[in-house]
Amino acid sequence: MEAYKVLEVKQSVFDSNDKEAQQLREQLKKDGVFLLNLMSSPGSGKTTTLKRTIAALRDEMKIGVMEADIDSDVDAKAISETGAKAIQLHTGGMCHLDAAMTKQGLEGLGTEDVDFAILENVGNLVCPAEFDTGAIKNAMILSVPEGHDKPLKYPLMFSIVDVVLVNKIDVLPYFDFDMDKCREYVHMRNPKAEVIPISARTGEGMDAWYNWLRTEIKAFKENQ
Amino acid sequence: MEAYKVLEVKQSVFDSNDKEAQQLREQLKKDGVFLLNLMSSPGSGKTTTLKRTIAALRDEMKIGVMEADIDSDVDAKAISETGAKAIQLHTGGMCHLDAAMTKQGLEGLGTEDVDFAILENVGNLVCPAEFDTGAIKNAMILSVPEGHDKPLKYPLMFSIVDVVLVNKIDVLPYFDFDMDKCREYVHMRNPKAEVIPISARTGEGMDAWYNWLRTEIKAFKENQ
Repeated sequence: MEAYKVLEVKQSVFDSNDKEAQQLREQLKKDGVFLLNLMSSPGSGKTTTLKRTIAALRDEMKIGVMEADIDSDVDAKAISETGAKAIQLHTGGMCHLDAAMTKQGLEGLGTEDVDFAILENVGNLVCPAEFDTGAIKNAMILSVPEGHDKPLKYPLMFSIVDVVLVNKIDVLPYFDFDMDKCREYVHMRNPKAEVIPISARTGEGMDAWYNWLRTEIKAFKENQ
Repeated sequence: MEAYKVLEVKQSVFDSNDKEAQQLREQLKKDGVFLLNLMSSPGSGKTTTLKRTIAALRDEMKIGVMEADIDSDVDAKAISETGAKAIQLHTGGMCHLDAAMTKQGLEGLGTEDVDFAILENVGNLVCPAEFDTGAIKNAMILSVPEGHDKPLKYPLMFSIVDVVLVNKIDVLPYFDFDMDKCREYVHMRNPKAEVIPISARTGEGMDAWYNWLRTEIKAFKENQ
């Protein structure tokens, strides 16, 4: 038997998504579940970052992960191996999760024993940015090999996130990636976004990310 | 004055896309314009690959490039600096190009003096795979930092392409990328897909890609 289940989630009607997202956010506040929506391009390191984050924080909080994908189970398998509660969401070809799908995911995961829920969104810099999932905070990963110009090309994504993790800094010497320009472009789109350089592979910079999470989750719990 | 123009392309109704794509393909055959649809994740090196390809082939054929993006002009600017004919297509938030948008792009570009037209699709492994653009051949770039497991996670994209360029092989030593597994996974999805390892930065492997293009364009012209 697999350590995770697979759920086929269905999209709601587009018009009501903002309302549904707001309702879900209220419910999460009531239930004390901090939901983080994690977005990125394919292959920028979402799953590796999550695995390391779970290992670092699992003694401090109860973590549950929803892995959204078109139709594979690769990521839920990887996450369930960490011992964290995990569920695989299949979007049936959709390139994003909306609030209704996220709600179905949370119900499938079961949040009664979760205080930090993570939605690993579909690998895509366009569609996920267009749909409010109802998450408390939105995070994205931009990896060094993708280039520092991405905020210029995917403005909406960078404008809606609270934090940008710049991953794979261990390979900075091998790429023409300018961290200062990256920060400048991110802040052009979103002056409030936090930029945290990390290497999910080596662990470099990850403490700043854990501290960002601890601070946000503490503030969320205090505002309940 | 910029060396390229910017066109806001509009989506057609979804139902008729396959028909419109087929009609566009017939028209391209009549006109002798080989249209290549190039897809990939954000930051996998589409523009760098195109710049090098244009430099290598511009004395053999007349090249025109359509750069599709949500709303930036970064890529058309880079391409027009190569001296190739270029046009920027803005999709107005859409994460793909359909056949109607591609047709508008070709009309905007002007194909009377073009025999090799390239559509650089929006950086995305999901939506562009769902819409036939009317192209003669479909190509995609998978870059080493994205990982060899991508064919498992984005099955449709890998199933519809004629050739997969595995880019950034110059950084293979710094990533856990298994080229044999990559080939195996690509061929699981699509036994006929050609897999060509390249580095658009150093030029390694690019000759195999140019030869693939020469062969396909020659076959296309002979079948006219």
